[in-house]
Amino acid sequence: MTISFLGLGEMGSALARSAIDAGHDVVVWNRSPARSAAFASSARVAGSAAEALEAGDVVVVCLFDAESVHRVLDPVADRLTGRHVINLTTTTPEASRDLAGWAAGHGADYLDGGVMAVPAMIGTPESLVYYSGSRAVFDGHRDLFETWGAAEYFGQDPGLASLHDLALLSAMYVMFAGFFHGAAMVGTVGTSAKEFAGRATAWLQALLPALAGYAEVIDGGDYTLPGQQSLAFSDITEIVEASRAAGLSTEVVDVVQRLIHRQIDAGHGSEGFARIIESIRNPGRAA
Amino acid sequence: MTISFLGLGEMGSALARSAIDAGHDVVVWNRSPARSAAFASSARVAGSAAEALEAGDVVVVCLFDAESVHRVLDPVADRLTGRHVINLTTTTPEASRDLAGWAAGHGADYLDGGVMAVPAMIGTPESLVYYSGSRAVFDGHRDLFETWGAAEYFGQDPGLASLHDLALLSAMYVMFAGFFHGAAMVGTVGTSAKEFAGRATAWLQALLPALAGYAEVIDGGDYTLPGQQSLAFSDITEIVEASRAAGLSTEVVDVVQRLIHRQIDAGHGSEGFARIIESIRNPGRAA
Repeated sequence: MTISFLGLGEMGSALARSAIDAGHDVVVWNRSPARSAAFASSARVAGSAAEALEAGDVVVVCLFDAESVHRVLDPVADRLTGRHVINLTTTTPEASRDLAGWAAGHGADYLDGGVMAVPAMIGTPESLVYYSGSRAVFDGHRDLFETWGAAEYFGQDPGLASLHDLALLSAMYVMFAGFFHGAAMVGTVGTSAKEFAGRATAWLQALLPALAGYAEVIDGGDYTLPGQQSLAFSDITEIVEASRAAGLSTEVVDVVQRLIHRQIDAGHGSEGFARIIESIRNPGRAA
Repeated sequence: MTISFLGLGEMGSALARSAIDAGHDVVVWNRSPARSAAFASSARVAGSAAEALEAGDVVVVCLFDAESVHRVLDPVADRLTGRHVINLTTTTPEASRDLAGWAAGHGADYLDGGVMAVPAMIGTPESLVYYSGSRAVFDGHRDLFETWGAAEYFGQDPGLASLHDLALLSAMYVMFAGFFHGAAMVGTVGTSAKEFAGRATAWLQALLPALAGYAEVIDGGDYTLPGQQSLAFSDITEIVEASRAAGLSTEVVDVVQRLIHRQIDAGHGSEGFARIIESIRNPGRAA
């Protein structure tokens, strides 16, 4: 069985390298040929996407976005018939579903994936990849997936892996933004980002167990349970004012304050902080 | 030496309790007398703020905000002379500086504090309190502070403890908002918040070491150093679109996208993600 890799960015290269190291028969292709050079001695380098498709029983796609997937595959779609397409490009759930339908229309079996790792982690025990879509493709290539890291299957809906991937990425990007905001605050009195990172790492680490507590409240749906920090108490006026006084943009903390205040304004000030998820769930309403 | 505690909310009560348990002579006062009842057998309960002030050599203030501190202390300010005031109420750096000046004007020595713990943590090894302001007050009451947790002194500027406190709180609140956003996303396909919390806790934990790397770049000031994820690659269009398609508010992720795009629009798309701190530092400018 031959595996073709389309796209040799940092992530695509790491995925192909893992497969090669595990002894798989690999064909690689990249739009700009420079990145293929590193594979000249260990894999077959295809001269075109069509050639790569024809050579592979399995096609692993790792490109920039859904549009680039179509740009590469549309002209050669007639060669997809009977092949297994594994798309690890970051796409929205909707785009993953569209691609699955499009692939099926060309006789291909489609599995979507979300890589929960940076390229350097691929092949290590810390690496994790989410999959959804064709169960047959998932079951048929476990040996390949295990060269990349742990593999988790979310179901037949091709959008599920992407949705769970993007949800964790949103938590990550937002956490980073909060760190940068704090670093900017203390930076105004000359505290280094390094010093703040040391404090923030320990602080956020100590707070992570709170997520399970918030989750329990959210799943239970009762924000009036005792023992919760109230929304009124969670008002972050001091943070917003201190940020503004320090000459910083308040955007990052304004949004949290807005989520809190939509719930307070709707009469829920005495209920628990976890209720701000309702501000996210109901964009057009006060509660 | 007698220590008077003004304010017996959750935090004020925990602080007073720790001091009592360590054998300190304690007087307590609370605006609504109900909360003082729990201390009837272990401390002297003052009938008024004036009485509490007169009884204490040290006055520990833990109220709702800077305004409530003034509301309680202004009418009895003449009794502050010669006393040590330790204010653990959450206030902005500016308000802490104002309070320090106000206290000095009434002949009191002022130390400001930021409690980096929830009430249940007070007195445990995980508890940490930041201080700034009078060095003499800080040095003179280390035995009291050690009953609460680790103590760190930031300097004579009374606003420093508050600034560092609020910076960490901002990182915390924003991280929580990111978690709620992700939980809302996966909630739209029926994934429980509990399941997401398990994934998010492990994921964010694995990402915390990245803060030190970002800090190094920020302190170095060179966002073109190799090995960084670029701003162009960090575009989170998929997250924003998937959130919108799921019927959620996109506010939380919009703000991150905006910080990223201000830098890209200013021509820094190939530079590292840590550069978004410049979007926070420069609210009115593109870069």
